[in-house]
Amino acid sequence: MFSAQDRAAFHQLVQARRDMRHFTPGASVAPEVLRRLLQAAHHAPSVGLMQPWRFVRITDTSLRRRIAELVEAERLKTCEALGERGDAFMQLKVEGIRECAELLVVVLAPDDGTVFGRRTMPKEMALCSVACAIQNLWLAARVENLGMGWVSMFDPVALAHELQLPDTAQPIAILCLGPVPQFYDAPMLELEDWRHGRSLDEMLLTNCWPPSALRG
Amino acid sequence: MFSAQDRAAFHQLVQARRDMRHFTPGASVAPEVLRRLLQAAHHAPSVGLMQPWRFVRITDTSLRRRIAELVEAERLKTCEALGERGDAFMQLKVEGIRECAELLVVVLAPDDGTVFGRRTMPKEMALCSVACAIQNLWLAARVENLGMGWVSMFDPVALAHELQLPDTAQPIAILCLGPVPQFYDAPMLELEDWRHGRSLDEMLLTNCWPPSALRG
Repeated sequence: MFSAQDRAAFHQLVQARRDMRHFTPGASVAPEVLRRLLQAAHHAPSVGLMQPWRFVRITDTSLRRRIAELVEAERLKTCEALGERGDAFMQLKVEGIRECAELLVVVLAPDDGTVFGRRTMPKEMALCSVACAIQNLWLAARVENLGMGWVSMFDPVALAHELQLPDTAQPIAILCLGPVPQFYDAPMLELEDWRHGRSLDEMLLTNCWPPSALRG
Repeated sequence: MFSAQDRAAFHQLVQARRDMRHFTPGASVAPEVLRRLLQAAHHAPSVGLMQPWRFVRITDTSLRRRIAELVEAERLKTCEALGERGDAFMQLKVEGIRECAELLVVVLAPDDGTVFGRRTMPKEMALCSVACAIQNLWLAARVENLGMGWVSMFDPVALAHELQLPDTAQPIAILCLGPVPQFYDAPMLELEDWRHGRSLDEMLLTNCWPPSALRG
């Protein structure tokens, strides 16, 4: 039985977790700590027990550099796509790939044909399983007082090519992981006034969608 | 700073979480507890802070019955699709929709046009954000000693119709939530010998995909 104290600690953890882009250069993560994080990820639920997650640890420094370049190329394309907000966007720090202690790429494995629980939404459910694993990893990192950032600003085909993935695998996340100088007090996008989160009440509905609300 | 005790409690939680299909009939979840769970979900990370999750609480008993019927229809289609494993599949309990204390449907909201972090994988990244919220909710339920089951065995178009969702919203999960007689010691699909999980080591790669391994 979990206790009230366990509950308080869990909610503290959930609230303290941040998408980090600032890391302590030159720091490291002990192998047994990294293992614990990956074990937590691997304990995630998955549709039909398919466990479609693969974790690629990047130890090759030239590969890390090429990944950083891929992300930089996509950052410039994002700037263009943002139009008038492009300049403000370029002021934001969006990743810590060069500085973080550990770099992981999480890959959606090639489809193994699992039917259970995914006959109608095969790709969606596999993806959701991978995301649950990443969220476990994120919380596990935070409880070790380590930061993690999920970078999704990349061309998945180009990154798949760098990692020599089979055609049917898809990289979903570049995870920057490691010690950080400090955790943000709020999501960095809020601190930088890029965007502000909405309240829980705006996300709650009863029985059906309201006729004209919450279209965003 | 989180402590070694916090870490131990977190990993215990991650390991104790189960996808539940057996619930205590006639039980309830206190409103303040349900609120805590939804707050944990709402504290999830989301790409570009778009918070694309919507939680539909099902309180209408006839709607709950129609949702159960939708899932039953998909269960029969899954049986057909499974071919020779169909009979064994029909022996499994795959959901607890009628018995669980609370029933929620989690919906991927209509795309709000967020570009940040999802120019190349817009649908994938929104979905992953919703899944992170569900994983937070799952852990938050477990730490309250409540069970949760993610039912994905449904036709999303038919369920969207029942909930009167706008065309561009998609239901992702039917969540059964509430007190359970007991938690499974291992994933139910393992206990029932339907499928067994693989080891973490099979999921780990370094720098690139190996030439001929892990294609599943």
